[in-house]
Amino acid sequence: MATIRVPDEVPSPAQDSETLNQAFRGWGTDEKAIIRVLGQRNESQRRRIRESYKEIYGKDLIDDLSSELSGDFMKAVILWTYDAAERDARLVNKALKEKKKKKIENLKVIVEISCTTSPSHLIAVRKAYCSLFDLSIEEHIASSLPFPLSKLLVTLASSFRYDKDKTDAEVATIEAAMLREAIEKKQLDHDHVLYILGTRSIYQLRETFVAYKQSYGNTIDKDVDGCPGDADLRSLLQIAIFCIDSPEKHFAKVVRDSIEGFGTDEDSLTRAIVTRAEIDLMKVRGEFFNMYNSSMDNAIIGDASGDYKDFLITLLGSKI
Amino acid sequence: MATIRVPDEVPSPAQDSETLNQAFRGWGTDEKAIIRVLGQRNESQRRRIRESYKEIYGKDLIDDLSSELSGDFMKAVILWTYDAAERDARLVNKALKEKKKKKIENLKVIVEISCTTSPSHLIAVRKAYCSLFDLSIEEHIASSLPFPLSKLLVTLASSFRYDKDKTDAEVATIEAAMLREAIEKKQLDHDHVLYILGTRSIYQLRETFVAYKQSYGNTIDKDVDGCPGDADLRSLLQIAIFCIDSPEKHFAKVVRDSIEGFGTDEDSLTRAIVTRAEIDLMKVRGEFFNMYNSSMDNAIIGDASGDYKDFLITLLGSKI
Repeated sequence: MATIRVPDEVPSPAQDSETLNQAFRGWGTDEKAIIRVLGQRNESQRRRIRESYKEIYGKDLIDDLSSELSGDFMKAVILWTYDAAERDARLVNKALKEKKKKKIENLKVIVEISCTTSPSHLIAVRKAYCSLFDLSIEEHIASSLPFPLSKLLVTLASSFRYDKDKTDAEVATIEAAMLREAIEKKQLDHDHVLYILGTRSIYQLRETFVAYKQSYGNTIDKDVDGCPGDADLRSLLQIAIFCIDSPEKHFAKVVRDSIEGFGTDEDSLTRAIVTRAEIDLMKVRGEFFNMYNSSMDNAIIGDASGDYKDFLITLLGSKI
Repeated sequence: MATIRVPDEVPSPAQDSETLNQAFRGWGTDEKAIIRVLGQRNESQRRRIRESYKEIYGKDLIDDLSSELSGDFMKAVILWTYDAAERDARLVNKALKEKKKKKIENLKVIVEISCTTSPSHLIAVRKAYCSLFDLSIEEHIASSLPFPLSKLLVTLASSFRYDKDKTDAEVATIEAAMLREAIEKKQLDHDHVLYILGTRSIYQLRETFVAYKQSYGNTIDKDVDGCPGDADLRSLLQIAIFCIDSPEKHFAKVVRDSIEGFGTDEDSLTRAIVTRAEIDLMKVRGEFFNMYNSSMDNAIIGDASGDYKDFLITLLGSKI
């Protein structure tokens, strides 16, 4: 359930291109016009606008946005304007090229893209990655990260999971026991853990997590959390479990974490809103309310400001 | 370079369907007509014939072929009539369901399909697998084979390799040394081995194999062959190296092995001819001659017989 609102009568891609080009002209930039056009068009409409803009003005819309806008607003509008597959390929690439300090935080994005998007979207991201960066996602991961992180991420990013809601209770019980055994032996890098989480369907894994809780009392993410060893691996495994179990809860938490405390993590906030606005942001909003007993929209309005805020709330379905 | 010969004037799919349906009618079956029609049509023409046959007769062409034909001839014609992605998905599934005795021999097919077809074809095979068998290739491998075989095969089958001819000499030297180290330590199941072979592009790997030979004297497949340990893993790794290094030589060897000695391994012979007839069978023929100083076509004619032989030589470009 998407949150963006496409008007009943949508101008032609050529008209939208002209509005955008007008907004770039002269001294100042008309940010509101940019938000009204791009923030209220779905993915295929935005693609047609990019094509039409190129045709009419001989320039790349993304290039013009990047020279006319700035800061978090620019970053958010550009992420939103890319094809979804190219956008995600760029997020993965940024994560892999990140300097050490924020590395693990950024690697979570790879888990997120691998575990919360459809199998066919993940393939499209891998294709885009090869075209943009002249290497495959999996070879970039394998050649730049240490084991066992690379193993986990190669497996997750290479998956093409069965995507129908058909599960096997016996498999759930057996594999819950295999996961339990690895946790008890403090072997979070055990091949069983990586291959169960990396190859089974999302529906099967959810049933396995339920079987785990029924048999062993705790939720599996809690037991993983209590497991000593490589903190980075533990952290990525937990994100994988959250993303598989409930993408909506995961993204509600991403939004909350990004605005809580001193300062805002705009990159994470932008990513959550931009990547989910056409998928399940309505559900994320509901989960946010369930989890934190407050309105996600109000929390964002209270934390972001200016054109950046206006753009986000437009993606959340408000009119500015 | 394909070997099949499509006539200059191809009948319409409806006419071809009628010829096939005529061939099935009455007491005997007109095998020659079946060979002339299906053996001289390319993949998209065969697809249109299947669609047209279904439309006109309300029956599945594959079902009719399977009830009208028999033995190796039937198996070959049916493999040839499937969509290539569905055909390969079925070959993988057969390999994974094989009983113990012939298991390792059959697992080689998974290596073959993973390492000698294009990245986009491999994705199409994975999609077909999910549709046909209600699970993904990688989960079927991971849940039915022991480590480290499953690790190797999951990595190979999940790859979406960068497919342009762009290599890095430094990477080749470094990774040749990593492969060498694993072989010296007798650790063919080392993660470096699996991830280098499983994620790098075919072109990069070929350069790495050259660097290996330059630095260490032997070809890498020879050193793998001399490495003690799990014989099955060694065998699959060698096949992977052969398939990456030269698919044509690999398939020339498959053909030769299938007809050499007492009795013929028709399944392997059929697979080699059917799967490569529209890709590189002309080159396979050339490599066969280079390697064994004899004609592949004559070897097949001398070994196979009847309609089966006629069908294979039709795929090899002869007129019957």
